[in-house]
Amino acid sequence: MLHLGFDVGGTKVAAGLVDEDKRIVARLSLAFPKGTDGASFAAYLRRMADELCREAGISEGDVPLIGIGLPGTLDASRRTVLHAHNLGFHNIPLAELLSEVFPHAGISLLNDADAATLAELKAGALQGCRSGLLLTLGTGLGGGIVSGGELFYGGQGRGVELGHMLLHKDGRRCTCGQRGCAERYCSATALALAGRRAAKRAPESLLAGRAAGRPEKIDARLVTDCAKAGDPVALAVFDTYVDELAAFISSLVNLLDPEVIAIGGGLGQSGEFLCAPLRQRAAEKCFYKSCGRIVPAQLGNDAGLIGAALAGSLI
Amino acid sequence: MLHLGFDVGGTKVAAGLVDEDKRIVARLSLAFPKGTDGASFAAYLRRMADELCREAGISEGDVPLIGIGLPGTLDASRRTVLHAHNLGFHNIPLAELLSEVFPHAGISLLNDADAATLAELKAGALQGCRSGLLLTLGTGLGGGIVSGGELFYGGQGRGVELGHMLLHKDGRRCTCGQRGCAERYCSATALALAGRRAAKRAPESLLAGRAAGRPEKIDARLVTDCAKAGDPVALAVFDTYVDELAAFISSLVNLLDPEVIAIGGGLGQSGEFLCAPLRQRAAEKCFYKSCGRIVPAQLGNDAGLIGAALAGSLI
Repeated sequence: MLHLGFDVGGTKVAAGLVDEDKRIVARLSLAFPKGTDGASFAAYLRRMADELCREAGISEGDVPLIGIGLPGTLDASRRTVLHAHNLGFHNIPLAELLSEVFPHAGISLLNDADAATLAELKAGALQGCRSGLLLTLGTGLGGGIVSGGELFYGGQGRGVELGHMLLHKDGRRCTCGQRGCAERYCSATALALAGRRAAKRAPESLLAGRAAGRPEKIDARLVTDCAKAGDPVALAVFDTYVDELAAFISSLVNLLDPEVIAIGGGLGQSGEFLCAPLRQRAAEKCFYKSCGRIVPAQLGNDAGLIGAALAGSLI
Repeated sequence: MLHLGFDVGGTKVAAGLVDEDKRIVARLSLAFPKGTDGASFAAYLRRMADELCREAGISEGDVPLIGIGLPGTLDASRRTVLHAHNLGFHNIPLAELLSEVFPHAGISLLNDADAATLAELKAGALQGCRSGLLLTLGTGLGGGIVSGGELFYGGQGRGVELGHMLLHKDGRRCTCGQRGCAERYCSATALALAGRRAAKRAPESLLAGRAAGRPEKIDARLVTDCAKAGDPVALAVFDTYVDELAAFISSLVNLLDPEVIAIGGGLGQSGEFLCAPLRQRAAEKCFYKSCGRIVPAQLGNDAGLIGAALAGSLI
């Protein structure tokens, strides 16, 4: 049986058919229809599903279960989108609206970070664990929790906002209104911004040279590449970043002590260059002086889509 | 059926018989036998059990289930004490040693903070919740997690060390070797130390006056009492403390979003004087701008003993 998943973002909407081996067998990506209302958006997803099924040569009846992952907060029953700022959705009964356009399918909504966690649990780096964490290091810092072998949706079902845990109370200002959230120190954005500051102070560095006078060209990838190439300035920036992230992981370990911690998002793709020093530093900082396995996430950018499709199979 | 529990601390050992209504019907408290080895300690607990049963007029066969809560880290199977620094125990197979002296009883070990959480879940402020937190504000900062309606023992069974989550990375030095652990800002000890510093700077304050030149007399209780009496110096200290604790709670809520957060330990007994401002500030600081119910814990100093006894009933 195929599962249909949607990974909804503020820029684009991806739809995918996932088979029983948890692989994406067909996919389609379109722009997010900005300014849409809930009913129009449901109709938009219906048209995407029709097109995807047509291309895959199957009928809609072959996908009785549909999951939708999106960047937002859901109500406790996970039927209504309470807030999804990037989508402009507030209090949208999206599951009900989708049931109207997909009258024969079961509908599951979930937070996109939870979707990625579910995908890593069912088909990636968290497979087989009873307790685990996914940290996604991207524009923001997201992630999710596996507890008792299952995805943890948050005690009140609103999802997990681990990027907004405090690491430096009263520190850097965060978009959420607080100061010192872990996201300000541990996201890929934080690494890029630290790289830009360092390049400004060290115009002779490889990092500054690669930016060629355009600091906005410095992203987490460039900092990592320059650090791999041995640039002392980039190495120092990367080292500070690893220290912050290791400290944050140790803090989570002291609370949850998971068996596995998977590192995903764009930075997760730097693999052992990041994971090896993280492993050592996080263990040193932990109360128990040891922690679960720190490993790269396995599903990359597909995690959200695969997880959304698999969410449908859990209802 | 009665359950026998032991609450083991570095100073004293309490034993209690708990009935089916989760009330302590008989209790006994003796000094902790410092310098003891595991086998001698098991024999010590056996003698305490015999004395308690004799006083209660029951035979040992009436207490087939025995639970022991202690300040330490257990192995994943919760049969061996890996480390309990205050007791001088390292790698002690305590469950096995206890089975030898209590051959007819089932034995459960658990961390003392987990025991208190279990007690609040089964008989106190966390009753009926699916997701909850207990924070114990005492000499240290401890606590536990309820997830899926059950006590969460940590992903690898070693217990939860929430006092050693980071709140101010690189901040005050902690006994665990790190800097900036929440315990340094949110324990009753942290409130007392802040009170002493403030009294030194403000010898005219009620707080300094009540200490009468002996700063060591200033504990969390005296700071709270002076704040209740309207002393501006004590109020400012208390206000800063509430801000730190509210920030820490918001950080936990952003991760776990529990239905209920119970405030225990010595400071938990200040009730609404602490909980009312905490409720407002924690909600303001949370990502969702709301959080679960913040309430005083209900079982006070008996939580550890009741929880240990109830742990026996769960095996």
